[in-house]
Amino acid sequence: MPEAIPIIGGTGALGYGLALRWALAGRAVVLGSRDADRAAQAAKKLSDAVPDAEIEGMANAEAAKQGPVVILAVPFRAQSENLTNLKDSLEPGQLLVDCTVPLAAAVSGKATRTLGVWQGSAAQQAQEMVPEGVTVVAAFHTVGAPDLADREVILDEDVLICGEKKADKAKVAALVHAIPGLRAVNAGPLETARIVEQLTPLLISINVRYRVHAGVHITGLPNADHWE
Amino acid sequence: MPEAIPIIGGTGALGYGLALRWALAGRAVVLGSRDADRAAQAAKKLSDAVPDAEIEGMANAEAAKQGPVVILAVPFRAQSENLTNLKDSLEPGQLLVDCTVPLAAAVSGKATRTLGVWQGSAAQQAQEMVPEGVTVVAAFHTVGAPDLADREVILDEDVLICGEKKADKAKVAALVHAIPGLRAVNAGPLETARIVEQLTPLLISINVRYRVHAGVHITGLPNADHWE
Repeated sequence: MPEAIPIIGGTGALGYGLALRWALAGRAVVLGSRDADRAAQAAKKLSDAVPDAEIEGMANAEAAKQGPVVILAVPFRAQSENLTNLKDSLEPGQLLVDCTVPLAAAVSGKATRTLGVWQGSAAQQAQEMVPEGVTVVAAFHTVGAPDLADREVILDEDVLICGEKKADKAKVAALVHAIPGLRAVNAGPLETARIVEQLTPLLISINVRYRVHAGVHITGLPNADHWE
Repeated sequence: MPEAIPIIGGTGALGYGLALRWALAGRAVVLGSRDADRAAQAAKKLSDAVPDAEIEGMANAEAAKQGPVVILAVPFRAQSENLTNLKDSLEPGQLLVDCTVPLAAAVSGKATRTLGVWQGSAAQQAQEMVPEGVTVVAAFHTVGAPDLADREVILDEDVLICGEKKADKAKVAALVHAIPGLRAVNAGPLETARIVEQLTPLLISINVRYRVHAGVHITGLPNADHWE
């Protein structure tokens, strides 16, 4: 039995979309929210949508304890606060998958622009803030929340993963590959999140121009799964 | 008869690769180089490879006068010097297609990292340096020079174009579409080059890990040509 997937910000658009896809894939998910009642409501909604799935809702600090790989799917504006609140919940050995994108929208700027983050990227900021022994991997920046949340949409795109160790990235790749239509690509060390986080505003810029939900596909890669 | 395509830095890897593909497509190309003799040698080599093509080689300052859309395909280290040297060659109404990527390799750093450019991107630096009335469009950052230079490689990837006016970008898109297997995507205004220029080090990072020549494909776009 695979372990549950805790999603911090599981009531938000990206978090809920990922939860839906993992629930459909038969994975147990734990929806976290700042407010335990909102988490419970979202869990109820998701359970109604995927009746057979194992779904719980609870406050973020509790949710973060429910599995070895914790998804952080919150807006950049709330990333720092969330990480501060998780300091007593996260344990050495856990992976934190940071999906945060420092869109300028966080300070009422454009969603086609980003803020400069002192550490270089939101993921690197997360690595600085998590407790000792917790490792940050960055992923899920380019998969659109509306497409995830609409189970009728057939996904066909890549998820770029940044992190220091391939073994850690492989664990996240397994979560990516649990969702049909997504392919995990090893994009490099955590610092490469500086680039990958920028793909979100790029896709937003393209979405505005083409009225689509664009994604990214890396061409030229071997077909074989290289994560084994 | 379509006008000739001048390529500043036409003896370099990217410039020569683009020249080969355009020559194969029946387009007249003008290879520019700092050194007119080297340009002539490269033109001879390209003429041998594509005997029917219309190919000339000349010093950059002369080359830049040979067509309305000028390709700037030089390393970031040489971009500023080249633009200074072109001040008396470029004329109002011309488009300059900047392909420059500010890789940290320019200062002996890693090719998986970039330098910060004061204006935000190499393309915006170019726009600041060109004569009044010359418009910069950014493109061709993600198409690998080795793949372009090997006519046996079947291309199948996107070129992201950044610029202020769609009409200008459409002219560049026409050059993109002259090369079989390349699709032009409107990525946004020139400032979006800040993001698109970062895709090169991202692909270099992926290339190192997978031992491939990776490219980018944007998913979810309509099939129809939207540039008309």
